[in-house]
Amino acid sequence: MTSTNGVSSSRAGGAGRGFALRVVEAGWFQRFIITVILVNAVTLGLETSAEAMARMGGLLLAIDRVALAIFVAELLLKFWAYRLSFFKNGWNNFDLAIVAIALVPAAGPLSVLRALRILRVLRLFSVIPSMRKVVQSLLMALPGMGSVAGVLLLIFYIFAVLGTEFFGEAFPDWFGTIGRTLYSLFQIMTLESWSMGIVRPVMEVYPWAWAFFVPFILFTTFMVLNLVIGIIVDSMQMIHEGEAHAERETIERRAHEERAAMARDLADIKREIRDLRAALAEGRE
Amino acid sequence: MTSTNGVSSSRAGGAGRGFALRVVEAGWFQRFIITVILVNAVTLGLETSAEAMARMGGLLLAIDRVALAIFVAELLLKFWAYRLSFFKNGWNNFDLAIVAIALVPAAGPLSVLRALRILRVLRLFSVIPSMRKVVQSLLMALPGMGSVAGVLLLIFYIFAVLGTEFFGEAFPDWFGTIGRTLYSLFQIMTLESWSMGIVRPVMEVYPWAWAFFVPFILFTTFMVLNLVIGIIVDSMQMIHEGEAHAERETIERRAHEERAAMARDLADIKREIRDLRAALAEGRE
Amino acid sequence: MTSTNGVSSSRAGGAGRGFALRVVEAGWFQRFIITVILVNAVTLGLETSAEAMARMGGLLLAIDRVALAIFVAELLLKFWAYRLSFFKNGWNNFDLAIVAIALVPAAGPLSVLRALRILRVLRLFSVIPSMRKVVQSLLMALPGMGSVAGVLLLIFYIFAVLGTEFFGEAFPDWFGTIGRTLYSLFQIMTLESWSMGIVRPVMEVYPWAWAFFVPFILFTTFMVLNLVIGIIVDSMQMIHEGEAHAERETIERRAHEERAAMARDLADIKREIRDLRAALAEGRE
Amino acid sequence: MTSTNGVSSSRAGGAGRGFALRVVEAGWFQRFIITVILVNAVTLGLETSAEAMARMGGLLLAIDRVALAIFVAELLLKFWAYRLSFFKNGWNNFDLAIVAIALVPAAGPLSVLRALRILRVLRLFSVIPSMRKVVQSLLMALPGMGSVAGVLLLIFYIFAVLGTEFFGEAFPDWFGTIGRTLYSLFQIMTLESWSMGIVRPVMEVYPWAWAFFVPFILFTTFMVLNLVIGIIVDSMQMIHEGEAHAERETIERRAHEERAAMARDLADIKREIRDLRAALAEGRE
Repeated sequence: MTSTNGVSSSRAGGAGRGFALRVVEAGWFQRFIITVILVNAVTLGLETSAEAMARMGGLLLAIDRVALAIFVAELLLKFWAYRLSFFKNGWNNFDLAIVAIALVPAAGPLSVLRALRILRVLRLFSVIPSMRKVVQSLLMALPGMGSVAGVLLLIFYIFAVLGTEFFGEAFPDWFGTIGRTLYSLFQIMTLESWSMGIVRPVMEVYPWAWAFFVPFILFTTFMVLNLVIGIIVDSMQMIHEGEAHAERETIERRAHEERAAMARDLADIKREIRDLRAALAEGRE
Repeated sequence: MTSTNGVSSSRAGGAGRGFALRVVEAGWFQRFIITVILVNAVTLGLETSAEAMARMGGLLLAIDRVALAIFVAELLLKFWAYRLSFFKNGWNNFDLAIVAIALVPAAGPLSVLRALRILRVLRLFSVIPSMRKVVQSLLMALPGMGSVAGVLLLIFYIFAVLGTEFFGEAFPDWFGTIGRTLYSLFQIMTLESWSMGIVRPVMEVYPWAWAFFVPFILFTTFMVLNLVIGIIVDSMQMIHEGEAHAERETIERRAHEERAAMARDLADIKREIRDLRAALAEGRE
Repeated sequence: MTSTNGVSSSRAGGAGRGFALRVVEAGWFQRFIITVILVNAVTLGLETSAEAMARMGGLLLAIDRVALAIFVAELLLKFWAYRLSFFKNGWNNFDLAIVAIALVPAAGPLSVLRALRILRVLRLFSVIPSMRKVVQSLLMALPGMGSVAGVLLLIFYIFAVLGTEFFGEAFPDWFGTIGRTLYSLFQIMTLESWSMGIVRPVMEVYPWAWAFFVPFILFTTFMVLNLVIGIIVDSMQMIHEGEAHAERETIERRAHEERAAMARDLADIKREIRDLRAALAEGRE
Repeated sequence: MTSTNGVSSSRAGGAGRGFALRVVEAGWFQRFIITVILVNAVTLGLETSAEAMARMGGLLLAIDRVALAIFVAELLLKFWAYRLSFFKNGWNNFDLAIVAIALVPAAGPLSVLRALRILRVLRLFSVIPSMRKVVQSLLMALPGMGSVAGVLLLIFYIFAVLGTEFFGEAFPDWFGTIGRTLYSLFQIMTLESWSMGIVRPVMEVYPWAWAFFVPFILFTTFMVLNLVIGIIVDSMQMIHEGEAHAERETIERRAHEERAAMARDLADIKREIRDLRAALAEGRE
C-alpha cells in the first residue's frame, strides 16, 4: 500500500503533517480501519433484528457512533496529511461522500437515511487494494460497452413506445405508461414469466402479440450476448496479447543482438581484408 | 464523418449540387439532424401519455410535423447531392423507408401506422457513426450462424410436428396447431415456466412426456450454446489474430533487413577477396 | 459433393452399377432429393391440421406415399452402386433407419409410429453438406465433455438419493421416487420456479431445506459453466492455434532459407581464403 | 495410476508392507474398488424405494454392510502400506472422512446420518484419475475468483441490510430477517419469479421498489458475468499460451543454433585472414 496521493512523506511541510502522513500510510493503520469497518458491518446487520436490538441495542448504537467518529478522525488526518491534493484521489472523495451521508441529521425521511449507513461497508473497496483493483477493472469495462448499450437502450425505448400504444389500454398495469412498459420489457428480457405471466394473457386480447414479443426477446438477448462477447474479447486481448508481446520482444532482442554481433564481425573481416590488401600493395611498391 | 457515397464535393456538377453536397456532409448539419431526431423521440414518447396530450397535445403534434418536414427536406437535399448514387448506400434506403412510413396516410388501420412513427428514432443508427458500426458488426455476425441456426430450426420443426400430434388433443391451447406448438417450444427453450407451467400438467395426462421435453431442452440449449461459442470464436479470431499478425510482420521485416545487410556485407567480402587474389596474381606475373 | 463411400465411378464393375453411381453422385440427383424432403416436410406439417386434412387429405397422403417410394428407390440405387461398402458410411445407415421406421406397418400403437415419419426431415442433415458438418462438429464436441459430465451426473445422483430420503414423504409428487427427484432437480438446475414453486413450499415443512438446494444450484451451475468453458477453450485452441502455427512456420522457413544462404556464402569465403593462402604459399616457393 | 503417496514399493520396509503396497497400487485392486462403489451406489438408490425394500431389503442392507467392510479393509491396507504418509495425500483423508461418516452409530437423528451414506459414491472421484483431475481443476479455479466473489458478497450483504430495513415490516416472509432477505436476493439474482413473484407485489406497497431491485439485478448479473469471464480468460491463457510458448521456444532455439554456427564460421574466417596476413608478412621479411 503505497501513497496514492503523490505526496511523499519527505516532501511534507511541518513535523505534524509528516507524522500524519506516516500514520495514514502505515500498514497497521489500514488494518485497524478494515477491522473497524468489519465490526461496524456486523453491528449494522444486527440492528435490523428486533431481538438483537432489544437485548443489546445500546451497545450496538454506541459501537456505531464510535465507528463513525473513527472514520471522521481518519478523514481529518488524511486531509491534514494531503491538504488539497486529498481531493485529487477519487477514492478519498468516495470515502468522504459515504461518511457525509452518516453525518446528515436523519430527521425528515428518517428510515431511508438511517438505512444508508450500511453503505459505509463500501469503504472496504477503497481500503483493500485487491478489491479496489476489481472495482477499477469493472469500471474500465464500462466504456467499451458504450455503443452496444446505446443501441440496446434505443431499441428498448422504441419497443416501450410501441408497447404502450399497442397494449396500454387493455393492460394498464403492465403497459399503461412508458415507465411501466420499460419495467415489463426489462422483466421480459430477463425471461422471467414472460410467456405464462405476460404474453399469453396479452395474446388472449391481441392474438398477434407474439410477433411483438418474440422478436423483442430474440433481439435483446442477441444484443446482451454481444455485450458479453465484447467484454470477453477485450479482456482476452488485453491480458493475453501483453504476455505474448513481451515474449516476442525478448526473443526479438536476443536475435537482434546476435545478428548485431555477426554484423560487427563482418565489418572486422572487411577491415582486415582491406588492411591485407593495403599491406600487399605496400609490399609490392 | 466522411462522404460514404463515393461522390466528392469537387466532382459534383452544378454549383447548386456542390452546395448541397457541402451542406449534407457538414458536421453541423449532421449534429442538427441528430438533435431533431432526439427531440422527436421525446415528443413521440410524450404522445403516449394521455395527460401530456391533454396539456400540450397541439405543440407535440406540431413538433412532430416539423420534424417530419425536416427529414423530408434532408432526403431531398441528399438526393439532389448524390443523384442516383443515393440509392447505392444501404443507409440512405433505410432512411427513405423510415420516412416513407410516416408519409403514408394513416387512414384504415390508424393506430398501427401512427405507432410506427417511433421507428424514426432508428435513424440515429444511420446518422451516428459508432452506432452504425455496431449495427454493421451485428449484421456481419449473422451469416456465420447460418448452418447452426438451420439445424436448430429443423429440430424445432420436427419437435413441433411431433408435439402437435402427441399433445394437441389434450392441450389444444398449448399444442393445438403447429404455430401454437412452435410458440410453446420457444417458451420452453427460454426455460420460462417450462416445468411447473407446461410439462408437469402435461405429465399428468402423458406420464412419459418428460422423455419428449427434457431431450428438447438439452438439445436446444446445447445448440444455442454452440451458436454463442461460434460467435465468440469468430470475433476473437478476427480481432486477436490481426494484431499478433501485424507485430510478427514488423519483427520479421526487421530481421529480414538485418539479414539482407549481412548478406550484402558477405558479398562485399567475397568481392574484396577476389580482387585481392587478382591483385596477387597480377603482382606475381 | 464428392463420393464419401470411397468407391469412384471408374472402379465400379458392371455398366449398370456405373450408371447407378453416376446418378447417385450427381448434383441434380441430390438437389432433387432435397426438394422431395422439403415438400414432404411441408405435407407432414399440414397433416397435423384437421382443416387441411379435411380439404386435401387425399393429396397429402398421396404425396407422402410418393416421397417414401422415392426414398426407398434412392436407397436401393445407392445400395446397388456401393454394394456392401454402403454400410461403411454412417450417414447411409442413418438414412436407412429413418426410412425403415416409415415402412414398419403402423398397426398396434398407431399414432406414435405415424408421428415418427417426421423424422424423415432429419435426412436433410445427411444430404446437405454444410448441415452434415455442423452435426459432425457437435458430435465431436461430446467426448471432450465426458469427465465433467460424469462428475455432474454423479453429483445429480447423490443429490437425488438424498432428496428422496429427506423430502420424499412430505412431497411425494416432487421427491417421491429417485426418478421424480431427478426430474425436480433438473427443473431446479434450469432455475425454473425453483424457489417460489419448489423450495419455499419445502421450507415451510423443513426450514433448513435451503441448505440442500442453494448449494445444489451453486454447484450444478458452476459445473455447467465449466462444461461450456471447456468447449469454448477447445474450439478456440483448435482453430486459433492452427492459423498462428501456419504463419510462424512460414516466417521460420523464410528466416531459415536466408540464414542457409548466408552460411553458404561464409563457406565460399572460407574456401576462397584457403585458395588465396595456397596460391600465396605456391607463389613464394 | 501411479503411487501418489511418494512411497515406491521398493523403499517399503517389511515384506508384508511391500505386499500391501503392491496390492493397493495394482490396477485390478482399483477396478475392484470402483465396482464395489458402483454396486453400492445402486443398492443405496434402491433403498429409497419402499417397494424394493419390501421385496429384497435384507439383500440390499447386506450388500451395504459388505461394501462398508471392504472400504474399511481398503483403508487399513492403505494405512499399513503408507504409514503416516497416508495422511499427506488429501484424497486419503477425503476417503477416510467419507467412510468414518458411515461408521458413526446412526442413533439420535437417524435419517440424516443414514442418508449421508450415499456420499460414499463420492469416493469415485478419488479412485478414477480422470474424475480426480476434473475435481482438482475445479478447485484450482476457485482462488482466482476470490476478489470478485468478495465484492459480490459485500454487495449482497449491503443489499440484504437495506432490503430488510426497507421491506421487512410489510413482507416479513421474504425480507423479515437478514437471512430471509439473503435467500430472497439469491432467488432474485437467479431471476426466478423475481418480478411477478416478488417485485410486483412489493411495488404495490412501495412503488419505488424497482429502483432497489433492478440495479441489484443489473449489478449482480454483471458481477457473475465477470466471474465467468475471469475463469474463461484464465483457462485460455494457461492452456493456450503454453502451447504457443513451446513452439516459439523451438523456433528460437533452431534460429539461435544456426546463428551460432554462422558466428563460429565468421571467427574461423577472421583467424584465417590473420594467418594469411602473418604468412604474407613473414614471406616479405
